[in-house]
Amino acid sequence: MRDVVIAGIGSTVFGKHPDSDIQTLAIRAASAALADAGVARSEVGALYLGNFVSGPLTGQEVLAGLVADGLGLPQIPCTKVEGACASGGIAFRHAYLAIASGVCDVAIAAGVEKMTAAGTASMTAALNCALDNRSDGGSGLTFPGLFGLAWRVHEQRYGTSREQVSAVVKKNKANGLRNPLAQMGASLTNEQIALSALICDPLRLFDCCPASDGAAAVVLVAADRARSLKRPPIRVLASVQTRGSARIAGHLDLCCFDATVSAARLAYTKAGIDPSDVDFVELHDCFSIAEIIDAEDLGYIPRGEGGIFAAAGRTAVGGDRPINPSGGLLSKGHPVGATGIGQIFEAVLQLRDQHPNQVAGARIGLTHNLGGTGVACTVNILGGPDA
Amino acid sequence: MRDVVIAGIGSTVFGKHPDSDIQTLAIRAASAALADAGVARSEVGALYLGNFVSGPLTGQEVLAGLVADGLGLPQIPCTKVEGACASGGIAFRHAYLAIASGVCDVAIAAGVEKMTAAGTASMTAALNCALDNRSDGGSGLTFPGLFGLAWRVHEQRYGTSREQVSAVVKKNKANGLRNPLAQMGASLTNEQIALSALICDPLRLFDCCPASDGAAAVVLVAADRARSLKRPPIRVLASVQTRGSARIAGHLDLCCFDATVSAARLAYTKAGIDPSDVDFVELHDCFSIAEIIDAEDLGYIPRGEGGIFAAAGRTAVGGDRPINPSGGLLSKGHPVGATGIGQIFEAVLQLRDQHPNQVAGARIGLTHNLGGTGVACTVNILGGPDA
Repeated sequence: MRDVVIAGIGSTVFGKHPDSDIQTLAIRAASAALADAGVARSEVGALYLGNFVSGPLTGQEVLAGLVADGLGLPQIPCTKVEGACASGGIAFRHAYLAIASGVCDVAIAAGVEKMTAAGTASMTAALNCALDNRSDGGSGLTFPGLFGLAWRVHEQRYGTSREQVSAVVKKNKANGLRNPLAQMGASLTNEQIALSALICDPLRLFDCCPASDGAAAVVLVAADRARSLKRPPIRVLASVQTRGSARIAGHLDLCCFDATVSAARLAYTKAGIDPSDVDFVELHDCFSIAEIIDAEDLGYIPRGEGGIFAAAGRTAVGGDRPINPSGGLLSKGHPVGATGIGQIFEAVLQLRDQHPNQVAGARIGLTHNLGGTGVACTVNILGGPDA
Repeated sequence: MRDVVIAGIGSTVFGKHPDSDIQTLAIRAASAALADAGVARSEVGALYLGNFVSGPLTGQEVLAGLVADGLGLPQIPCTKVEGACASGGIAFRHAYLAIASGVCDVAIAAGVEKMTAAGTASMTAALNCALDNRSDGGSGLTFPGLFGLAWRVHEQRYGTSREQVSAVVKKNKANGLRNPLAQMGASLTNEQIALSALICDPLRLFDCCPASDGAAAVVLVAADRARSLKRPPIRVLASVQTRGSARIAGHLDLCCFDATVSAARLAYTKAGIDPSDVDFVELHDCFSIAEIIDAEDLGYIPRGEGGIFAAAGRTAVGGDRPINPSGGLLSKGHPVGATGIGQIFEAVLQLRDQHPNQVAGARIGLTHNLGGTGVACTVNILGGPDA
């Protein structure tokens, strides 16, 4: 396998895009990534597009081909991949593999979703496509329900408190204020969070990521072709994809996702690093409690101490374990298929030392994208020019 | 890149499966393929699932993970890929690449769709997800409309007649009678075809493939691990994926799909063969006229002579250019995401000399899977033990 680097990145703002159709969002992000890389369209050998629910929500499939058509790419393989909320991460891994294996020298990984035009009922129905609807959907379970249950387990087992979880919300909402791509940064108090609308006990409104429109894209190239690039290349030290059970009953533990644990272990081994070598993490905080669980699953924070670390400010930019300097899904937004690529966009800015909410001296970043009930997971470890 | 072989195959009957949910169909086909290969579940390193519209039609995504869960596979990468009607072929190519590149030694490629429970309106809406709905969908165009237009062009340019096109229908319906997996084999007369219900001028009922439920799967392994297999390994001589325009206006010619032409050229080059070396073809006859266009695009029949060859019986089993001995989409059925894998299932049976409608002495077979308006295409060339 050859070494692969990220040569260019592009992204729309995450939020509401009522005037842009879904392919336009993706084309905009991918065009920006190509320009950022200084790579010609004729050089691109493959396109992977992460998307979850464009079929049910927008009536449009074949998005990979549509986006390639709009970009004016050659007659290359263009593939939509789907793994619920991990679709973007899966797209990245396949673009990475296409280059690492020598299938092509340049590939685009993009992700896109358009959600905000849908009503609440059709949105919930679409998102529930990520449950196993044979075993769990019929129970009335939704994703807020699942993460509400997980919170209760974490609370009972580790004593995690409302205030500790609110520290995650406050941090990510504050980080979002510094990110011009974020949908809803905010400066919040404990009281505002605790008194916000009850969504699914104990989750309140501010514990939940918003629905979003948006797209992100990256251009990957073979490392030995990276000398002529416009930007310092960011190295892909590991790109791992795993699966877990789609069924709740298939999980031994409601506050641990096996797919994350195994993906992280494999990624650290492939990159030849320990969790302590990671300078920042962009992880899948679809709900506030998810950030705590994910950070523990990744081995980035000791098991059971996610709430303690958050409340102590250790996961803030400037802390010793920075998490989601972008604002994360909670405040940057969660256009599902775009999220995994958006995380990589943010990590590349950090490793270029150009992030609007920069982690000082960041050399190694980790991104974590989780689908459904942990049915799919990707973990990427990226290294800056000095890594 | 390493050599890759097909070690095992499995398929459900194509047709109506009102009592089986979509994941059960795929699990059944993949279990059969694993048993056929004599490969243990613990050996599988990747699963790719082709599916087009399970989101809109069944409210179920994350199918790759669900199927792996049901099969009891390890925590391996499991990916749904989508490229409309070419989804199955795309799944096959990615399983092939995973092994060829050394990512793993054993992979499953499966395809599945469940369509017959949907009403006509929701079916048409779902299938139209494969159009570019910004440029073409709003015109009222459907896929029967597109292929009806293509027929008119072929008729005007090459003089292709109703009787010549009916020869395709009669052959494929007759072939379907010999295939126990086929949905609707039949013995038809020219009159029955020409007087069947008008669908979209000039297409009649028997010119159109049915909607279907069904799944198919194959197990691929690295060639150097193939000595201990239960079955003679079938070699993958080429596996190619290309794209064309999703927009009608993006096509220079209504009765030629660029994506097929380029995929076929690449595949012949990679396999080191000429079209004349191919002993039979399983191609994407979603409509009768599509078989004629596809065969010409593949260079398997001279341009403009598809109708002539069909009427002369040259594309029948026993002819010099056999096409769709399985019955093709027209009579075997078209569970969209499964079709590309189902074609490979049929080709493997031919190359094992075990097909119920055997092409005598078949050594090299080609499969062709086309998505949407030609937005995605895969061509595979497979070789039997003597190839």
